[in-house]
Amino acid sequence: MKVTVVGGSGYTGSELLRILARHPKVGGLTATSTQHAGKKASALHQNLLGIYDKELEVMDKKTLDADFVFLATPHGESMNIAPQLIENEVKVVDLSADYRFDDVKVYEQFYSKHTSPDLCKKAVYGLPELYRDRIKKAQLVANPGCYPTSVILGLTPLKEVKELELNRITVDSMSGTSGAGYKPTEFTQHSEVDENLKVYKVGKHRHRPEMEAVIEEQLKKKVKVSFTPTLAPVIRGIQSNIHVYGSTAVDLMEHYKKYYKKEFFVRITETPCIKNVANTNYCDIGVWYDQNASQVIAVSVIDNLVKGAAGQAVQNMNLMKGFDEKTGLECIAGHP
Amino acid sequence: MKVTVVGGSGYTGSELLRILARHPKVGGLTATSTQHAGKKASALHQNLLGIYDKELEVMDKKTLDADFVFLATPHGESMNIAPQLIENEVKVVDLSADYRFDDVKVYEQFYSKHTSPDLCKKAVYGLPELYRDRIKKAQLVANPGCYPTSVILGLTPLKEVKELELNRITVDSMSGTSGAGYKPTEFTQHSEVDENLKVYKVGKHRHRPEMEAVIEEQLKKKVKVSFTPTLAPVIRGIQSNIHVYGSTAVDLMEHYKKYYKKEFFVRITETPCIKNVANTNYCDIGVWYDQNASQVIAVSVIDNLVKGAAGQAVQNMNLMKGFDEKTGLECIAGHP
Amino acid sequence: MKVTVVGGSGYTGSELLRILARHPKVGGLTATSTQHAGKKASALHQNLLGIYDKELEVMDKKTLDADFVFLATPHGESMNIAPQLIENEVKVVDLSADYRFDDVKVYEQFYSKHTSPDLCKKAVYGLPELYRDRIKKAQLVANPGCYPTSVILGLTPLKEVKELELNRITVDSMSGTSGAGYKPTEFTQHSEVDENLKVYKVGKHRHRPEMEAVIEEQLKKKVKVSFTPTLAPVIRGIQSNIHVYGSTAVDLMEHYKKYYKKEFFVRITETPCIKNVANTNYCDIGVWYDQNASQVIAVSVIDNLVKGAAGQAVQNMNLMKGFDEKTGLECIAGHP
Amino acid sequence: MKVTVVGGSGYTGSELLRILARHPKVGGLTATSTQHAGKKASALHQNLLGIYDKELEVMDKKTLDADFVFLATPHGESMNIAPQLIENEVKVVDLSADYRFDDVKVYEQFYSKHTSPDLCKKAVYGLPELYRDRIKKAQLVANPGCYPTSVILGLTPLKEVKELELNRITVDSMSGTSGAGYKPTEFTQHSEVDENLKVYKVGKHRHRPEMEAVIEEQLKKKVKVSFTPTLAPVIRGIQSNIHVYGSTAVDLMEHYKKYYKKEFFVRITETPCIKNVANTNYCDIGVWYDQNASQVIAVSVIDNLVKGAAGQAVQNMNLMKGFDEKTGLECIAGHP
Repeated sequence: MKVTVVGGSGYTGSELLRILARHPKVGGLTATSTQHAGKKASALHQNLLGIYDKELEVMDKKTLDADFVFLATPHGESMNIAPQLIENEVKVVDLSADYRFDDVKVYEQFYSKHTSPDLCKKAVYGLPELYRDRIKKAQLVANPGCYPTSVILGLTPLKEVKELELNRITVDSMSGTSGAGYKPTEFTQHSEVDENLKVYKVGKHRHRPEMEAVIEEQLKKKVKVSFTPTLAPVIRGIQSNIHVYGSTAVDLMEHYKKYYKKEFFVRITETPCIKNVANTNYCDIGVWYDQNASQVIAVSVIDNLVKGAAGQAVQNMNLMKGFDEKTGLECIAGHP
Repeated sequence: MKVTVVGGSGYTGSELLRILARHPKVGGLTATSTQHAGKKASALHQNLLGIYDKELEVMDKKTLDADFVFLATPHGESMNIAPQLIENEVKVVDLSADYRFDDVKVYEQFYSKHTSPDLCKKAVYGLPELYRDRIKKAQLVANPGCYPTSVILGLTPLKEVKELELNRITVDSMSGTSGAGYKPTEFTQHSEVDENLKVYKVGKHRHRPEMEAVIEEQLKKKVKVSFTPTLAPVIRGIQSNIHVYGSTAVDLMEHYKKYYKKEFFVRITETPCIKNVANTNYCDIGVWYDQNASQVIAVSVIDNLVKGAAGQAVQNMNLMKGFDEKTGLECIAGHP
Repeated sequence: MKVTVVGGSGYTGSELLRILARHPKVGGLTATSTQHAGKKASALHQNLLGIYDKELEVMDKKTLDADFVFLATPHGESMNIAPQLIENEVKVVDLSADYRFDDVKVYEQFYSKHTSPDLCKKAVYGLPELYRDRIKKAQLVANPGCYPTSVILGLTPLKEVKELELNRITVDSMSGTSGAGYKPTEFTQHSEVDENLKVYKVGKHRHRPEMEAVIEEQLKKKVKVSFTPTLAPVIRGIQSNIHVYGSTAVDLMEHYKKYYKKEFFVRITETPCIKNVANTNYCDIGVWYDQNASQVIAVSVIDNLVKGAAGQAVQNMNLMKGFDEKTGLECIAGHP
Repeated sequence: MKVTVVGGSGYTGSELLRILARHPKVGGLTATSTQHAGKKASALHQNLLGIYDKELEVMDKKTLDADFVFLATPHGESMNIAPQLIENEVKVVDLSADYRFDDVKVYEQFYSKHTSPDLCKKAVYGLPELYRDRIKKAQLVANPGCYPTSVILGLTPLKEVKELELNRITVDSMSGTSGAGYKPTEFTQHSEVDENLKVYKVGKHRHRPEMEAVIEEQLKKKVKVSFTPTLAPVIRGIQSNIHVYGSTAVDLMEHYKKYYKKEFFVRITETPCIKNVANTNYCDIGVWYDQNASQVIAVSVIDNLVKGAAGQAVQNMNLMKGFDEKTGLECIAGHP
């Protein structure tokens, strides 16, 4: 199967190439880059030396003439590429935010003017644990944001638990620096990040409306999420602490285990931590009831580049093409 | 002035020695250790080489015969030492939890049987920004826990803001590994901590009742804190994200600036982060109102070993002895 | 194929389980532990949750009755287990130092009394790039030390370059903390290691005689290595800087590329760095001639737990059992 | 005393401001910046919030009219500023390389065309432990490079040890990321540096000729240094491993202790490591004789921004102005 990654120079593109280079169903793998066309992929991503040394190419008719296309393009660019691919009946996973919102107005409020609003309705939100059946039939899948993936998976089982104030959700997330991308900034220099913790965009991060939209759709009610992200001195990983007030006597760990019983990539554990999911497509979740404060606390961890981006994108491709969902995604984290 | 540090081998003792070795009012500085008596302090704390090379001594009448004593002893041991010191009219700052609770029953629920409950009433909670006048006159000061210091300073100004649900407080804190102490454990090995984030004691950390007690005393009402600590891969520093629901139109940053206007060691900033307070006695605080979720979010950062332990202890000593509060504590964090 | 890992609780055992759990030729995988028998492997190595949840077992006749046994046991213990396995015609890779030295006297000088000296002659040094043919036929393979693997691979091609003073080799190596093992020590606590670099055992590390022995065997001459290891604040990885004086006009990069042309796991690059080999079985090498100082500098990097231990052990197993050498070892490092 | 820091926005400028803001002899402290003039120093260096909030100014007659000027300017810019200052009889420490070389030709080979070669002869190399008397009388001091400071201090005592091959010196240095400066680059992004070790400019770093020149001047003989720097995932600190072949029976640790007996900022220790000197002006040195390989190994550690830059610059200022050499420089590293 011929696969093209549009946007092969960034960290998401890099991670897609890493997974797809070993994917048994992928034959011709091509990557494009506006800025770095002509360079070897392994010159930019030196981990791929001897593994994927092909040159990054210009995006054009030839490179887009594939069986499957991943758009690892910035927000606002995917919408200029996807419509033609859909017309050509190429299946597409878009890793940007462009098709994540049913309601184009919300997208336009937090991102920019949308140039293909019609496709938004057609696109399926690519969280397989919630929307597997729809994804199987989709031609265009909008791959979820990293923070939303961790929060939605950590929260959804609570919809079956009564007496919780699910309209008000408080989330504290910590993210590694790979989430900020490859482009150097003062905010993400080693000397600025190491031995540091930095809160940013408090209450203003645009992953918040994405979470709210999906949670509302799941809960069938209006929901407000207060979302506070912190940059932590790790490369990969997101930990989301999800707080919901309410009163319950349910054994929450058992409930979560049962809820996700059939999900290969969700594990329930007393000790969720990002190292156990680093480089993998797993989402590990722990959940506790704080009797004193009458609060449920769910802690959800993922690798932001795998389950939070490239891994989930490949999981979606597997579903869309009828492959075993796990194909190419069986990497295990190291200990230590 | 002769000063003795009881418990000079741990990280809190180490930090006390570092500060006191350069304190202009401290003449004879002695440190004791049960396990390491006879070793040079600078053999254990190699940063002190050429600066404080004296041997750690056995705790006895001679070493306790000082003008001022810091008890950097484990919880449960301070209460065996303090009573005699108080009787001898030696001024004492206890860095353990032994005298932090007015209500001995709460202490005994979370720690152990108390052997000098009478002294608990006499001890003053050593948070100078809240209890400066009482500290000045105290003979025994109970130095606050690190997490409570960050949370209480970050929260207290909200007591003057109306319409907040101050009876329910959600706190997510991240702490560096020095908070776990010098004793090696599997939980704090470099290979287990680095590139990792680990939630622990969710809803069960014993700093929670300490926070609740002080906040209730400040707010004059019953309060429930839901407290979730996370171990982060940094050595020093605590970041506490404090969440309170409610509706307010107050300019919170301005309110905090005004509230702490006279406090040298509290700084209000849009960019609180632990590196700016590392190795210093500062507490930096940012505060935001999340209009969408009707929630106040205050972010408070300290160095857990300085403002969260040894620095605050010296600040208390300065007050108790009538020195300028800042003496010996003017260290500035580095950038980077 | 039934495989047993003796010593499944340490980091080397953990890494063996991670690789073997996904190895297509391995059917019944058993791990033993003296200290942790009865615990689930995934309780100790939480990365294995849902992947390898079997209990660690007691080492006994039943667990040793396998088609292949890895001894991930401490130095001095393997020699008590290997002889019986060899008698039972079980193929064995020993990851300790017990069978690395042809000359038992050298072993006894740096380690301890040897109880099965005869087997030393029979054992093959398990560096496939040097001894592939012998390994294929071996029943007992002594898996090399991590530092020696990096140094020997980085140095060997120089034996074909004339005019070098190959009898005197200076090596500076930096290692991550996983090399120190799972057992907590003050030396390897996060708070002691992070933001730090620590030289240790200068000129006294026992990997030095191992390097010397193999290099002498390769070069057919007496060699002295000066070896200085430094602990660096990373979890995985060794970088060895190898210095040899001499005068040469050879294009060293080209020479190394040619020398290792057929080796899948050795890559020659201008930018060797440990992240490119982390979690993989690759050894990346760069080599330069410093004209000013008349010195060759070769820089060799590996993951100490993979090519430096478990990965190389599985590579050896693949050779000993006639499988494709790469089986189970195709993991690619991440970028970032 | 009025002091101006030209170039207050970089890391060296930041560190100068941190030290000078607490220096008891410094009254009017001004900092300039080409790019950031008009911004508060504490907006750029947030550690200085509430401590040094003055605006960065334009460099002009007024700001240069000071009692003392530090040039924390890039190589090639200092030479455009220093001559006028010297003419105005302002004392100057230049932290760039512009006046470090007696031989302008060497400077021009490794840096750029020199526009004030005459001043090179007048400038004194600002390593107080070697050139204290000259510095006291100097009007222009060239502050040494960070790597050369660590290497020269670590090596110099060997000039009194016989039978060493001091014409051939091998140095492996590891440096933290602050050495690369404030300007973001892909090479120094957190996600690229963390969990990584990266060798760079092997045999080509321009600190090498600086070391050679000073060592030759000290040893009165021609010397070749082979210098290999590695970027390590720490913010501050340099460790230099210095290798010299030869045969000696001297107790090297004792010799070094004696040699540096009167030096406050040099400490001899069995356990040199960068954390013990971080944020301080100390240089810690350990030295060993590797009998097996007939090699002396000296390990020298400094904080690249303090003893390797701003601290040493202030030490030079203290000497040039007749203050106690230690003034403002008594900061102690933390443990941990």
